[in-house]
Amino acid sequence: MLRTAVVGATGYSGAELVNLLLSHPHSRIVGLFGSAKRDGQQPFEEAFPRFRDRLDLAVQPGDVDSITAAQPHAVFLATPHEASAQLAPALIERGIAVFDLSAAFRLGDAGQYPRHYAFEHPHAALLARAVYGLAEINRARLRSADLIAVPGCYPTSAILPLLPLVRAGAIATLPDGRLSRPIIDSTSGVSGAGRAPHQRSLFCEVHQQAYGVLKHRHQPEIDEHAGIATLFTPHLGPYERGILSTIHVDLAPGWDESRVRRTLEEAYAGEPFIRLCRSDVWPSVADVRGTNFCDIALAVDESWRHLIITSAIDNLVKGAAGQAVQCFNIRFGFPETAALLTDNNP
Amino acid sequence: MLRTAVVGATGYSGAELVNLLLSHPHSRIVGLFGSAKRDGQQPFEEAFPRFRDRLDLAVQPGDVDSITAAQPHAVFLATPHEASAQLAPALIERGIAVFDLSAAFRLGDAGQYPRHYAFEHPHAALLARAVYGLAEINRARLRSADLIAVPGCYPTSAILPLLPLVRAGAIATLPDGRLSRPIIDSTSGVSGAGRAPHQRSLFCEVHQQAYGVLKHRHQPEIDEHAGIATLFTPHLGPYERGILSTIHVDLAPGWDESRVRRTLEEAYAGEPFIRLCRSDVWPSVADVRGTNFCDIALAVDESWRHLIITSAIDNLVKGAAGQAVQCFNIRFGFPETAALLTDNNP
Amino acid sequence: MLRTAVVGATGYSGAELVNLLLSHPHSRIVGLFGSAKRDGQQPFEEAFPRFRDRLDLAVQPGDVDSITAAQPHAVFLATPHEASAQLAPALIERGIAVFDLSAAFRLGDAGQYPRHYAFEHPHAALLARAVYGLAEINRARLRSADLIAVPGCYPTSAILPLLPLVRAGAIATLPDGRLSRPIIDSTSGVSGAGRAPHQRSLFCEVHQQAYGVLKHRHQPEIDEHAGIATLFTPHLGPYERGILSTIHVDLAPGWDESRVRRTLEEAYAGEPFIRLCRSDVWPSVADVRGTNFCDIALAVDESWRHLIITSAIDNLVKGAAGQAVQCFNIRFGFPETAALLTDNNP
Amino acid sequence: MLRTAVVGATGYSGAELVNLLLSHPHSRIVGLFGSAKRDGQQPFEEAFPRFRDRLDLAVQPGDVDSITAAQPHAVFLATPHEASAQLAPALIERGIAVFDLSAAFRLGDAGQYPRHYAFEHPHAALLARAVYGLAEINRARLRSADLIAVPGCYPTSAILPLLPLVRAGAIATLPDGRLSRPIIDSTSGVSGAGRAPHQRSLFCEVHQQAYGVLKHRHQPEIDEHAGIATLFTPHLGPYERGILSTIHVDLAPGWDESRVRRTLEEAYAGEPFIRLCRSDVWPSVADVRGTNFCDIALAVDESWRHLIITSAIDNLVKGAAGQAVQCFNIRFGFPETAALLTDNNP
Repeated sequence: MLRTAVVGATGYSGAELVNLLLSHPHSRIVGLFGSAKRDGQQPFEEAFPRFRDRLDLAVQPGDVDSITAAQPHAVFLATPHEASAQLAPALIERGIAVFDLSAAFRLGDAGQYPRHYAFEHPHAALLARAVYGLAEINRARLRSADLIAVPGCYPTSAILPLLPLVRAGAIATLPDGRLSRPIIDSTSGVSGAGRAPHQRSLFCEVHQQAYGVLKHRHQPEIDEHAGIATLFTPHLGPYERGILSTIHVDLAPGWDESRVRRTLEEAYAGEPFIRLCRSDVWPSVADVRGTNFCDIALAVDESWRHLIITSAIDNLVKGAAGQAVQCFNIRFGFPETAALLTDNNP
Repeated sequence: MLRTAVVGATGYSGAELVNLLLSHPHSRIVGLFGSAKRDGQQPFEEAFPRFRDRLDLAVQPGDVDSITAAQPHAVFLATPHEASAQLAPALIERGIAVFDLSAAFRLGDAGQYPRHYAFEHPHAALLARAVYGLAEINRARLRSADLIAVPGCYPTSAILPLLPLVRAGAIATLPDGRLSRPIIDSTSGVSGAGRAPHQRSLFCEVHQQAYGVLKHRHQPEIDEHAGIATLFTPHLGPYERGILSTIHVDLAPGWDESRVRRTLEEAYAGEPFIRLCRSDVWPSVADVRGTNFCDIALAVDESWRHLIITSAIDNLVKGAAGQAVQCFNIRFGFPETAALLTDNNP
Repeated sequence: MLRTAVVGATGYSGAELVNLLLSHPHSRIVGLFGSAKRDGQQPFEEAFPRFRDRLDLAVQPGDVDSITAAQPHAVFLATPHEASAQLAPALIERGIAVFDLSAAFRLGDAGQYPRHYAFEHPHAALLARAVYGLAEINRARLRSADLIAVPGCYPTSAILPLLPLVRAGAIATLPDGRLSRPIIDSTSGVSGAGRAPHQRSLFCEVHQQAYGVLKHRHQPEIDEHAGIATLFTPHLGPYERGILSTIHVDLAPGWDESRVRRTLEEAYAGEPFIRLCRSDVWPSVADVRGTNFCDIALAVDESWRHLIITSAIDNLVKGAAGQAVQCFNIRFGFPETAALLTDNNP
Repeated sequence: MLRTAVVGATGYSGAELVNLLLSHPHSRIVGLFGSAKRDGQQPFEEAFPRFRDRLDLAVQPGDVDSITAAQPHAVFLATPHEASAQLAPALIERGIAVFDLSAAFRLGDAGQYPRHYAFEHPHAALLARAVYGLAEINRARLRSADLIAVPGCYPTSAILPLLPLVRAGAIATLPDGRLSRPIIDSTSGVSGAGRAPHQRSLFCEVHQQAYGVLKHRHQPEIDEHAGIATLFTPHLGPYERGILSTIHVDLAPGWDESRVRRTLEEAYAGEPFIRLCRSDVWPSVADVRGTNFCDIALAVDESWRHLIITSAIDNLVKGAAGQAVQCFNIRFGFPETAALLTDNNP
């Protein structure tokens, strides 16, 4: 049994981490912590009544001393990037494996933080040491990582279908020599906006709408880890969970639907959490609700050599807590699907 | 053209008032105000983008001087009861008719305010002067009122079906001499909770649930104006607008379904906004969405002499802004349905 | 490994059964069947895309021969009562344990079926043999049952809080000698209406509304198994899953809030799926979503000796598939929480 | 008073037509009809309870004789294209102005119907006579039209922002000489799927999802009336009303954000139903709910000369019934905003 702790347990990703870790055969939750010193001492079931009678732990203040006092082997940080940037170095220094769900260690270039996060990174040297926790891509490196930057929700939905195609040279080149820019139109459920009581997240305020156009923080993360400049436009939809990304790609000469499909099939053969949809089947966010799956569908308009992909994930699972647990499983040598998939019917 | 002003225009009831007054043939909106001095100077369409290009007014600070500077004939207060209790006296003193959507002047007994609102009423003498704005009941008195206490949303849905029955002696008497207590189980959409950014009103937090059991502020209002002790239990439902109240009444001897129906038919004959449903038809909140109707259905279990009523209103219209405009129409001698019902197909 | 089969697998309860059985450590699904002969041959993941790549089974026609050919030890019938009434006898005759989620065997008196279900029961003699599968009440009898009538969703939410009180004599007696009738106002999510494409279940048609007033089929089931005449009024709410029942009880002399609470605490001490809420906490349907819990909260208005209870369940889990699996666990001697609760953090 | 009739009154667009015509100062509804002979004789308020007590008309069978017997001056066809294709010629022959909300007369080339609608057009000669009812574009021709093909919902949201840019030459040219294809990713509420009881439109089945990829019937309509080949991908979202279209355009040299904005401002100056959003404001479908507005926002990524537009309409109003009434107003010389916009606060 590994001793695990969740910091930022009072947010949606934190609660999902608790939910998954509760059913993990090799984890014991030894501490729940708020995002900051001032948060804490609230019984967890008051924060999330669905955990009524399931977990007799109070949320403690989220400072390094309190966290380390619980003697965890692994800590999940579901904290804002500012908090993560401070907590992670202190924890790995003490030999604790850190799974950070914030953006604090996702970008390789410290210079991106002031621009996209209005944030001067206090530990830029650690960026090179952090491993981007997209398990399907970085599995080998995750085995020995001590600081894992769990990917953002939108980036997960976009990078998983795009990266194998980028690597295989499937993207068209423009006359000016640049690669054609994939267009990513994503819609997210409201849980992606977090649990802070903003007016825009009120029940009566949430309706289908674009936001953060040309300025969302996930743009540089997608571009860096997909290995290509993209154009990402997020939307909010009136539902709790799930991201659906619709992705447009101009294909290079020689690429057609079957080659695209084959490339993705080969890239993800044997992957437990990637499901390619059959032709003419388009995934809904309900198909992946509460799961760690990323469902991917595609079609090509051959006359324009235009590829349309849609991918669906649960933003709180494959887009956050589930992916973190998947990384945890890899890192500690547990079955990769532990707590994420129980299936006794092969 | 009457000059009208809305105070508390940045809340849901305030916006609904603006929406109705915009289409009122005898009103011109001369001022929009926040609930307090600090609110204001925001273009109204920034607060509510659906009014984009429809109303070129900024929200001003909601103090007496600013309001009176706009020289309104009538002011609608969609403000918290504390603010209304201060603003209303100052405005009526200046000869302005006040339609107060808060609870500040709904109760006749000032002693109820400390108990139910934790509030010491600063102008208790005015309680006797205020007219409770349930138009179907108090139409005559509304014609000369200068301070109209627009009823609460839950009370409207409960009092309208109950009052004619109470007056007609339809309620059973208990062995101890008290009247049997009607049971009112109501479910409200989330707009009833207002626009303040509370965690409990977030999209991901709203689910079917009881709240305020045995302690909701609308209990004394219902009891006073229905003329009978009741038991009111509110619930929240995951939708924007509408209240559905399910009401249980033990009938006195001699009362059956047809007599109940006849009593309500007679009480509301000719009323433009009360619709009695045919037998076996039960209204949904969608039937009244965006309207000033109160739909009422009923059935009697004759073997137990037990009456079940359901009533449906739009909490922001008949339960707030629409009822206020209905009172405004009565008060100023306009057709009672002005801005509330347009029907050229008799 | 027990060999299990699900009949009516293309409905919501059927899919939930598959979901639970997939993760059951002692079950192997050997067959999925439609509700009738004509249904079938569809890959299960076409019926429910969320099972994509998880279960490589086609839905077979739901006749006795097809079902028995799969050689199941236990069959779950998520079929209409007409189909269950025919299938169950044939299956138990072949030594297969039957868990019937329909109402076909829930009522003890065959004479109720024509009246409430417009249905002449073809195997009335079996009604006495069937065990009503409310595990918390009938655990002992379930151990040796071969025909288990899994309770309805509304009845589960009503009987669980009421029965211990009825048994303890907590209900007031009326002057005429009858027990005071508990009032049950319940709201259900739309999945309770099933997957048949009726207009009333369309997305744009579902809004808060009462239905089936004074004539719902669950009325006799509640009364029989709660052991008291009640008044049950169902409502539909605009959400997918969950039932919230608000229950009103006139208490007998000598009963107050603490005695009620103590009675329920004692009745359900050690029960893994009953959670009593602390004072002033009222459960939401989200608290139990996807779980087999029944959450119960209560308060007493002492001056009227009036008890208010609210109970919350997931209609597809504790109200259907989960309760069926709980019965299955009891019947076959598995841990009662198998597939229903995984918790490694005691 | 013009005598109006609605055919297909039991569908969502039909009901919205009734709703608008009820408040139209120059229309009197003289007949409501089903989509076919077999539909009919149902009181309208049974089909749509929200019209309770508002309209005492029964729905009649929708055949030519019944319709003409009502002696309407104008008929709105909210019928399937097969029915419209038969009814429209017979009605215009009798001198009745026809506003057809189906696709029967939207395409100029009869050859498109077999391909996209699996439909051999029985009156292809009429296609040239029909006027496409996008009021902002075809106002002049509508004044004398007798057969008006009211545009589809998705096309309305796409063509309105695109057409002025296409006409102005704002679209980039590809190396092969073709115009760069605008990408249109649209999300629609469920009412767009109509009221027929399909499983996919059930409350529990609707979740964010793409559908009809590369094969939606609105593709040729958009391309023909926008005057450019586009790539249209529709999505379904879990809400009742509204379409949000996110449109990507590669701009020709010389085009930047201010020029795009100026072009749209000039194209729609004085238009009562087109609202251009200020910079950095992105419309939600709630902003236009229940209205005839089309809200348009835009931004340009100058480094890639890439234009992003989002447009929002209510699919049942500007996307169907409202646009039909707007055409009706133009055709008969009424104020264009009659029944569509009441505003006494200039």
